[in-house]
Formats: sequence, structure tokens, C-alpha cells
Amino acid sequence: MKLCNRAKSGSLASGFIGIFALFLCSVSYAADPLPSWNDGTAKEAILYFVNAVTDKNSKDFVEPAERIAVFDHDGTLWVEYPMYTQILFAFDRVKKLAPQHPEWKTTQPFKALLEGDMKTVGESGMKGLMEIVVATHSGMTAAEFEQEASQWLATTKHPKFDRLYSECIYQPQLDLLAYLRANGFKTFIVSGGGIQFMRPISEKNYGIPPEQVVGSSGVSDFQVKDGKPALIRMPKIGFVNDKAGKPVGIYEHIGRRPILAFGNSDSDMQMIEYTMAGEGQRVGLFLHHTDADREYAYDRKSHVGTLDKALDQAGASGWIIVDMKNDWKAVFP
Amino acid sequence: MKLCNRAKSGSLASGFIGIFALFLCSVSYAADPLPSWNDGTAKEAILYFVNAVTDKNSKDFVEPAERIAVFDHDGTLWVEYPMYTQILFAFDRVKKLAPQHPEWKTTQPFKALLEGDMKTVGESGMKGLMEIVVATHSGMTAAEFEQEASQWLATTKHPKFDRLYSECIYQPQLDLLAYLRANGFKTFIVSGGGIQFMRPISEKNYGIPPEQVVGSSGVSDFQVKDGKPALIRMPKIGFVNDKAGKPVGIYEHIGRRPILAFGNSDSDMQMIEYTMAGEGQRVGLFLHHTDADREYAYDRKSHVGTLDKALDQAGASGWIIVDMKNDWKAVFP
Repeated sequence: MKLCNRAKSGSLASGFIGIFALFLCSVSYAADPLPSWNDGTAKEAILYFVNAVTDKNSKDFVEPAERIAVFDHDGTLWVEYPMYTQILFAFDRVKKLAPQHPEWKTTQPFKALLEGDMKTVGESGMKGLMEIVVATHSGMTAAEFEQEASQWLATTKHPKFDRLYSECIYQPQLDLLAYLRANGFKTFIVSGGGIQFMRPISEKNYGIPPEQVVGSSGVSDFQVKDGKPALIRMPKIGFVNDKAGKPVGIYEHIGRRPILAFGNSDSDMQMIEYTMAGEGQRVGLFLHHTDADREYAYDRKSHVGTLDKALDQAGASGWIIVDMKNDWKAVFP
Repeated sequence: MKLCNRAKSGSLASGFIGIFALFLCSVSYAADPLPSWNDGTAKEAILYFVNAVTDKNSKDFVEPAERIAVFDHDGTLWVEYPMYTQILFAFDRVKKLAPQHPEWKTTQPFKALLEGDMKTVGESGMKGLMEIVVATHSGMTAAEFEQEASQWLATTKHPKFDRLYSECIYQPQLDLLAYLRANGFKTFIVSGGGIQFMRPISEKNYGIPPEQVVGSSGVSDFQVKDGKPALIRMPKIGFVNDKAGKPVGIYEHIGRRPILAFGNSDSDMQMIEYTMAGEGQRVGLFLHHTDADREYAYDRKSHVGTLDKALDQAGASGWIIVDMKNDWKAVFP
């Protein structure tokens, strides 16, 4: 920007210099590494951080191998409102599997779900939702589950945006992921969502390979089925990669402390606290959903992606609140 | 080789051609991607496999992202005889921590270990060993454990080889790992050993970053300690990444089925069965410790790294048995 101003204030009488300046400005514009981000505190902080950790002459230089960036998924990389995508997938699977489960007609919360009584489903709380997830995500091989999830994600649309759920992803985050990788970062998803539900889309959507996805998981069992070795998904929750589980998941899967963490709800606080507690330059970001027109506006009292304590603590802890409405030039690709 | 023969049988009267042929032969020799491997069935099978999956015109071509290679650790990448290195680390920690644990003087198997009664320690079996591992690997932060493991690995020598345990690694496997990576493979450790015990050395020893190490793990807990967020290692086993646990660990951590798997004991059978059960070209290898002079000779009746059923099943299953004595030109770097 400085270069552009200087060139413009130079001798405009000279056509050559004027054209040269325009050329430089357009190059400078094209080279904006975060084109879907508006100029502002959040964008500046990201650019400053990446420059600091990648500049070999900086006291904050970080070796490429240690440039680990972690992103929450629901509400951080893709839409989570009005309901987490994976829960909707589980609801659809209850309807699909109902003929094989006559007992669901008389068992809550399955009964309510099949009758469209969403109030009762909601009242079953996290316990009820987990029962639905466990029942619909188990009793099949790993390959069969991947097929089911991929098929659903490739065909089911979000009601507000008339796009596939799998396409309700945020362009500014795609910019950021690409920018980080271009600067030697390894990018990971660290989500409370099911690890195997995200993997079929992680590479295509975000350029994040399956082995860089960390998430919650059920218990799996290695069995020989029909003469072929296979992984069978059991009806039991294994690890919950949420809240205080996120730093644990990072420890187990990645084995290094990230230097950048990006979330959007109070469930991401521990991941960001853990990230920030290391030495040297670090950055922790929360996406604040403030854009009722282009996406949704929700925070403290939302039933999904509650952002409350983190908003209060952000200032004192040096966390960056990214304001979707003001900081993002575009929302979707 | 053909080129060398042809050049030699050509006009040797021409000094130029002779020198040119020598030059080509030396290039061909220098370019052997597995210089520590003797020519033989195992080396040929590896070279054939890598050519097949990386040749774009081959029906067996595999996209780089799917080129996942997994290696067991103990007895496959480094020495496991006469006792698994991590168990020796745990034994040393019992001695170091004994002053803080007066109860160990009267509790087995700690009492026997402190008295040097290894027969009784051995008789305590896997249960006793696990008690020792759990007691010595918990009650500290992740960073403290990493420090303890790194320190021990940097200072403790193997009695037979007069080298650090961390340097008792196999040169032919370093060749193979480098060759695979040069051909677009992503290399992983998939071990029954503790994930956090291997990580401090995985990058330096094998060029395998911590995030590509899969192993057994204890339960960890995220806590704020002395005002600083930290991961505390709890006295509880979390996941056992051994035998049928290995394909499960691969599923959870990597999320793709490997196309190459290398182990050395019956505990690796399920990992190799899982690898081989996918479509297309795949290769499963077992290292057979047959070299009492340069390393050790053990298999069916060994107390560590038992290789028995896999030896019987290898022929029918198309697994490759790598004979250390005959297939490896060198053992250590």
C-alpha cells in the first residue's frame, strides 16, 4: 500500500511512471493473500503473525515443522446453524433405518423424531442426541459408513442457502488455510464432530487430508467378516474431542502444540488456551457469527456454537474476535 | 544392469565408449535406492511394488495421497531384544522414583524390580509390566514426560552394541523410508509402544514427524496447573495399539488404508491383513531376525517379538519374509 501511495504522489506527468504505478498497485492487489478478508484488526493480526513466525531474521521465527495450525470445524470452517450438520445426517439415518428398527416406534427420542416432534427430541438433550448418533453411526463397516456419509453429504442441501451442506464452507477460511500452507504451516481440523464424518470431505473442501483430521470417535473393532478383514463400528462412544478433550486430542494425534488455533465457541476455549500457553508468538481466534443477512447472527444464548465466556475473556487473554459481518468480504465461495 | 552389459560387450577398442560405459555403470550403482539391501526376493518385491504404484501408465498406479506406508517400531525399525526399550526405560524410572514411593518396597512387581529379582518381575507377566509402565508414565505433565523420555533416550546404551538405544536403528529401513518418501509415500510408525515415548526421536531417527506416529496411549487430562494450562498424564491405559488394535489405530489416526505395511511379529498380522485386504497392488512384509552375529536370532519361541503364526501363514497370504542375515547388507548406520 505504501508503494502505491508513493508512486501516485510521484510525477504523474510521466505517463510511464503512472502506468508503472498502476501495474505495481494491481500486482500488490492481486497478491493480497487473504482477498476475502476486509482490512481490519483481525486480518492485520494474522498477517503480522505469519510474517513474524516465517521471517528467519525475526526473534519469533518458528521452524516449518512446528508451524501447526488447528481449526475447529462446525461454525468455524462450515455452517453449523440452525443445527450441526452431523446431527441432521443422524436424523436422516433414523428415518432411513426405521424399517429395520421397529422398536424405535416406541422408544424415545427415536419415536419423537420419526413423528416429527422436534420439541421432544430437543428436550432429550445431549444424552438423547448421543443415543441417536451412536445408533445411526454403528453396526456397519468403516467402508460402509464412509459410503453413507459421502452419499448424504453429496446430496443434501441447506434450507437457507440452497447449497449442499458440504458446500456451506467459508471462503475467507479457505483463503486463510491456503495462505498458511503457502507459508509452511500444516493445517489440521480439530473438531467435536465425528472424525469419520468429516474425513470424506476434508481434502476436497479444505485441502486437509484425512490424517490431519482430529475429532470425536466411536469404538471400532477389527473383525474378519465374510472372510474379509474389516473394521466394524461398535455402538459405543470412544473419545469426545470437545472442550477439554480438544487439547487431549491434539496431544494424541498431533503430538505438538499448535501455534495458531481458530474456533468459534466456548467449546474451543481450552484448545485456544493450550495453544496460547506455549512460548513465542501465538495466535488464537474466534469467529463471531454477526451476519444475519449473509449467514446467521448468534452467540451467547445460541443452542449451537454458544459463544459467551470466550467473548468476555477475549480481551484479557489476547484472543482475536473475528467479526463475520465486518471482517469478511465474502462468506461462501 | 542391461545397459552396463551391453556397453561392455560393445566396442571396447573405443576408449570413449569404455569410459562412458563405466560412467553409466557407476551412475546406475550410485542410484540403487536401497543400498543396504542385498539383491534378492525381498528387495525385488519392494522395487517392483514401488514402480507399479508410481508409474502413471501402470494399472496399479496409486495417487500420491493414497501412498500410505506403515511400519511397526520395536524389532522393525529399532532393536527390541533382549527387552523392549520402553520397558527398560520404565524399569529405570522405578529405580529413580523409588524414594518417592516407599510403598514399592513391599508391593510386587516393584519390590522384585528394586531387588533385582528379574525372575519374579518376568513372572508378573503382562499385567505386572503394565502396572510398572502405568506407574512410571503418569502423574506428570506431557512436557515433563517428554523431557524424561528424551533424556533417557539420549543417554542410555544397549549392552550388546555399545550404542545408545535410540541409535540401535536399522540402516536398511532408513533406506526404505527415504526411498518411499522420495516416491511420494507418507510414512507412519504404527507401534504397540507408547506414542509419546517414540515421538521425541521419530523425526531425528526416521524422518517421521510426531503427527505420523501412532501408538498405545494412556489417558490424559487437560488441567490448569500453577496457573498454566497443561496436559496431565493419568495413571490409566487409554488405547492399546497392538494386534487387532493396530488396524483400529490406523483407522482413527490416518483414516486411510495403507498400501505397504512392515512388521516383525505376530502382533503385526492384523495390520498387515488389513493392509493387504484393500484393492490393487499392496505389500506386507515381516522382518525375520535371523542374524545372531550382527543383531539377534529369534522367532517362534521368543519372549519378545514372537514370530510364529505369521511365518506359517506368509506363503499362503503372499506376505514377504525379510531375512535379516541374507537380505540386509548392513544392519546399523
